[in-house]
Amino acid sequence: MKNNDSAPTRDHYSYFSTISTRWTDNDVYGHVNNALYYNFFDTVIAGYLVSEGGFEFATTDVIGLAVESNCRYRRPLAFPQDIQMGLRVAHLGKSSVRYEVGVFAGDDHQAAADGYFVHVFVLRATNKPTPIPDRLRAALERLRAP
Amino acid sequence: MKNNDSAPTRDHYSYFSTISTRWTDNDVYGHVNNALYYNFFDTVIAGYLVSEGGFEFATTDVIGLAVESNCRYRRPLAFPQDIQMGLRVAHLGKSSVRYEVGVFAGDDHQAAADGYFVHVFVLRATNKPTPIPDRLRAALERLRAP
Amino acid sequence: MKNNDSAPTRDHYSYFSTISTRWTDNDVYGHVNNALYYNFFDTVIAGYLVSEGGFEFATTDVIGLAVESNCRYRRPLAFPQDIQMGLRVAHLGKSSVRYEVGVFAGDDHQAAADGYFVHVFVLRATNKPTPIPDRLRAALERLRAP
Amino acid sequence: MKNNDSAPTRDHYSYFSTISTRWTDNDVYGHVNNALYYNFFDTVIAGYLVSEGGFEFATTDVIGLAVESNCRYRRPLAFPQDIQMGLRVAHLGKSSVRYEVGVFAGDDHQAAADGYFVHVFVLRATNKPTPIPDRLRAALERLRAP
Repeated sequence: MKNNDSAPTRDHYSYFSTISTRWTDNDVYGHVNNALYYNFFDTVIAGYLVSEGGFEFATTDVIGLAVESNCRYRRPLAFPQDIQMGLRVAHLGKSSVRYEVGVFAGDDHQAAADGYFVHVFVLRATNKPTPIPDRLRAALERLRAP
Repeated sequence: MKNNDSAPTRDHYSYFSTISTRWTDNDVYGHVNNALYYNFFDTVIAGYLVSEGGFEFATTDVIGLAVESNCRYRRPLAFPQDIQMGLRVAHLGKSSVRYEVGVFAGDDHQAAADGYFVHVFVLRATNKPTPIPDRLRAALERLRAP
Repeated sequence: MKNNDSAPTRDHYSYFSTISTRWTDNDVYGHVNNALYYNFFDTVIAGYLVSEGGFEFATTDVIGLAVESNCRYRRPLAFPQDIQMGLRVAHLGKSSVRYEVGVFAGDDHQAAADGYFVHVFVLRATNKPTPIPDRLRAALERLRAP
Repeated sequence: MKNNDSAPTRDHYSYFSTISTRWTDNDVYGHVNNALYYNFFDTVIAGYLVSEGGFEFATTDVIGLAVESNCRYRRPLAFPQDIQMGLRVAHLGKSSVRYEVGVFAGDDHQAAADGYFVHVFVLRATNKPTPIPDRLRAALERLRAP
């Protein structure tokens, strides 16, 4: 277990977005279920690619496939609180990108959870890896750690 | 099919809240899946009961059970747009309440979908109907149509 | 509330399929959340269209859009029990179909919930209603009530 | 990316269960969404704890909290195919357990995805770590690698 090391703070991330929680996010213990954190990862990443990278998921020939994901849960979250997601790019390869993601309860300074997510960009028709398109790459470059 | 009648507008509802959409809300056709509208119903109702009715779902002895729900879909929605939910109380009985709910794309005037949802309040321990507690009832009264 | 009338039984439906429940189906009260019943509706309908109607949702030019849905909840369900779904066609129009759906706890005779779901078939490119393709229509005919 | 190493096979796991996919599992690309794999992890684990460990999640004083989870995605899955989940215990501590999980398309020999999941057992009332109860521990011991 790596949860002994300290949780990342807001300054670790380059981009933020807010997600409202839903009644059904809470499981039988009254906490946001662990699997939903990955929905939040997906949502901040896709939101950034759409709004900043011109990504059009309905028609694009190049899509991002999930290759690996990971999350460390540090403090529980619960509906109805709002969640802020932090995002940065830790590694940017020719066809792949590794994101680091933080999950913050409201405007807390320290993350309630954090993890990573790896996309490989592929041709939709063949599932073969392909270079990240220029406009997307430029948007991802802007999220790289200083 | 009742979709020939006109969609309700904002002035039909008494209370509003905003829900952010998520990447996984979109189905294979790129629209918010029809079942999720009922998550949104749940969320605006539970959010109101918690914030305005003092409802504490983790510890309460009296809970609301879904008895019936209905939705008419008029225009598709899609991530990443925000959704506004409208809520009012159409009927308030001794132990039951019938909500009417509207789903609005952003700040549209006309609903993209609308429906109803019936709660029966029961004792958590026995599932037997019980009168709606006073504080909840007062909050629900405030949502009744004029 | 219409829950006073008696729940439909298995002989009301023409086609059945089994759905396994998941940990996250249970809400804070330990019951399958009401919105998920519509996921089950979707699943038995799409499963039938795919297996019996040759429906290929990834490539088809004609898709089914949800127009209206309804569910009456009679007895709670909970993970880890299996669910059996019953399906029949109550009305088959030129471009639309109205399904009736029953949700059964395991092999119970009486439904734990029941509802209906209306599809309008449209051209994917334009969202305009279009006649139901012949092979789909033949499959839907086989689900009509006697 | 660790996906260059070979996927685990069935003989790596000690316990199996089957999960039926749902229409809404497919995302806009027609594949089971990456976040849902963690629902499947939860489901095979909770199913085992309930059926083999006598775990009663509604009333238990000791609950398992997610501490870390990880998944490597190797080949896409899609509704309507069935999924088989493989489970074993890789590490069993005083209050924590690390599961390894495999996701198999139907009866494939090699996993389509695999990952791990760490539970810490805590007192529900205080969220403080507590020794794993004897009956649960005995059930978990039976899933340990030889």
